[in-house]
Amino acid sequence: MLIVKKFGGSSVANKERIFNVAKRCIEDYKAGNDVVVVLSAMGDTTDDLIDMAHSINPRPPKREMDMLLAVGEQMSVAYMGMAMDSLGIPAISLNAFQVKMHTNSSYGSAKLKSIDTERIRNELEMHKIVIITGFQGINRMDDLTTLGRGGSDTTAVALAAALHADACEIYTDVDGVYTADPRIVPNARKLPEISYSEMLELASLGAKVLHNRSVELAKKYGVQLVVRSSLNTNEGTVVKEAARMERMIVSGVASDKNVARISVMGVENEPGVAFKVFNSLARKNINVDIILQSVGREGTKDIAFTVAKDDLDAAVDVIKDDMKIFTAKGYEVETGVAKVSIVGAGMTSHPGVAAKMFGALSAGGINIKMISTSEIRITVVVDEKDADRAVRLIHDAFDLAD
Amino acid sequence: MLIVKKFGGSSVANKERIFNVAKRCIEDYKAGNDVVVVLSAMGDTTDDLIDMAHSINPRPPKREMDMLLAVGEQMSVAYMGMAMDSLGIPAISLNAFQVKMHTNSSYGSAKLKSIDTERIRNELEMHKIVIITGFQGINRMDDLTTLGRGGSDTTAVALAAALHADACEIYTDVDGVYTADPRIVPNARKLPEISYSEMLELASLGAKVLHNRSVELAKKYGVQLVVRSSLNTNEGTVVKEAARMERMIVSGVASDKNVARISVMGVENEPGVAFKVFNSLARKNINVDIILQSVGREGTKDIAFTVAKDDLDAAVDVIKDDMKIFTAKGYEVETGVAKVSIVGAGMTSHPGVAAKMFGALSAGGINIKMISTSEIRITVVVDEKDADRAVRLIHDAFDLAD
Repeated sequence: MLIVKKFGGSSVANKERIFNVAKRCIEDYKAGNDVVVVLSAMGDTTDDLIDMAHSINPRPPKREMDMLLAVGEQMSVAYMGMAMDSLGIPAISLNAFQVKMHTNSSYGSAKLKSIDTERIRNELEMHKIVIITGFQGINRMDDLTTLGRGGSDTTAVALAAALHADACEIYTDVDGVYTADPRIVPNARKLPEISYSEMLELASLGAKVLHNRSVELAKKYGVQLVVRSSLNTNEGTVVKEAARMERMIVSGVASDKNVARISVMGVENEPGVAFKVFNSLARKNINVDIILQSVGREGTKDIAFTVAKDDLDAAVDVIKDDMKIFTAKGYEVETGVAKVSIVGAGMTSHPGVAAKMFGALSAGGINIKMISTSEIRITVVVDEKDADRAVRLIHDAFDLAD
Repeated sequence: MLIVKKFGGSSVANKERIFNVAKRCIEDYKAGNDVVVVLSAMGDTTDDLIDMAHSINPRPPKREMDMLLAVGEQMSVAYMGMAMDSLGIPAISLNAFQVKMHTNSSYGSAKLKSIDTERIRNELEMHKIVIITGFQGINRMDDLTTLGRGGSDTTAVALAAALHADACEIYTDVDGVYTADPRIVPNARKLPEISYSEMLELASLGAKVLHNRSVELAKKYGVQLVVRSSLNTNEGTVVKEAARMERMIVSGVASDKNVARISVMGVENEPGVAFKVFNSLARKNINVDIILQSVGREGTKDIAFTVAKDDLDAAVDVIKDDMKIFTAKGYEVETGVAKVSIVGAGMTSHPGVAAKMFGALSAGGINIKMISTSEIRITVVVDEKDADRAVRLIHDAFDLAD
């Protein structure tokens, strides 16, 4: 078996944890498997680097930022190589240059293009554990890029796909995927398995277990994932194409507080205006989420949408710069909001799911600001202060507890 | 003019110093010059990385150590790029991969083989200040290597040679090259210029201003160096082929406490035994310095030599392993010793220089343990506790003070 194992920053935050991860990988290695380990930067390393960078330059060039941040994972993999060596196991660390982890040039949120597996295969043939930097890549110029949020998961899935791995294990600080965040809903239940599509909705909605990019990639290449804890040996949650037949209507409830709402007001009621707004944002690599278009005063339109809080400044810049192009009269920003969502493949065949969700919120006196739905998901935007309570109310309404 | 400027770790130890360096480089840039900056790792970064590495593995694999240490310079150059950007100057940081700084595979003490200057020239043509990681390279496998002691100086000189730079400025925390270490001899005098050969002897003897590798490289490629302070704008010391005609007999006095003495005793008095000893050490990349061979008991020989303290463990391992091959009866290690040297191109034409040096030591009651000479240098090994006093006595004897 060829196993790709990915460990996040908290799993390698200090010497003891580094050795825990090393031992876990060595178990698989000693059982006769080829082992590829993908690591994130240790604990707070990335935050410390960002803080220093911002103290030097409040808006550091993105290329230099990636040059800087890439050191975090390089430290992790080198330390892991040393730890495995001290346990008597041959291991080698490799960075983005060494595995030719090619990406495009979107610094800070680069997209993977190709991986050259030759070096990795050679090292595996020499019976080494291969330890690879997550999160980073190189572009056509050989400049370092970083993949952005969920980057290390994405690296792991891409490696699993490129190496035709037999398993791809994502280790995190939770046991698996739950019906809701156990910190918000204490009696949330762990799901033994979940489909890519459901996971995708949960991931993109802030369940924080897996990032949507990694799930999308896994779905695209049919990489079966296991999400499990680096702190215990409990069975995790399997993420795969078709989960079990008899399914619940709703698999889980998720909330996401990394949300800001921007409203562009007084836009001319002409075709193509919304396209211009979202096209300008897309060109700056800003992901827009829920979109609401409503009729404004004097025959104009208001266009509201949500973005991740991190993208807010950049999004506002775009709106400001292009106000004239959008024929807009003004804009508003609201930051104290959150998204709450339910996800479930069973929804499609069960009417009344939305009604039950809205009913639960209404009974709790929680105001819904925006609504968005897909085949397997319903999302509402509420005040941030109501978000946790909304999750608990909905979790109860759908009887998701243990 | 194309100017290569190298700044050491203390010059970029914090935000304020990073900006000082940035401003200094920008002055040259604004005066119309092409500027290439070579940086070491910030302040204690390297020490911190080494400490953590040793806590994980007391003898970390050298390849992984270099993978780890290379992050230090990458951080420096990225921060510098951000600092220059915040001052409105276009700049770009490049690491060893990006400038294809090829070395051999002697991890921890790699030798430079070639540099591809295309990327650097392209960036200079785009009117950017180019900031390059010192100290590191890549080998044939694309694995990271580090150059060891004096590595960043060597990088700077190699870049100056490859780019046919008009000047190569080595910034340090002293004003230039002195007749002795001013911390030991307060009235030591700064030399306006010095020849490569003299500098080479001073560097290899612990003057700590420039490492011998960088001076050797400068000599080989005719790169004229300026050693000056990053803390003030005083004129430094020029290091070049032929220094001024009318020269002093002795240019300077240097001491080196990073010395240990190993004696291999009772070696058979056969040809080739000394060769075997030093060949074994060379194969482990251990530099042997002063060698003394003397007659031991029963017709055998004793071979004593000095190594850098850092290499002592490795050297002792070699001696232990190969005792039989050397036909040796035992070995001794002495660590409390130091080298004290005088250097001067004028020595060759002035007899009695050695006598004057030994006389000064004798008058001070300092015992000489070993002696070694070259055309322009005389070195003695003394007790470490006597080293500073020896330097002062000799400095006085040759009237080197201001």
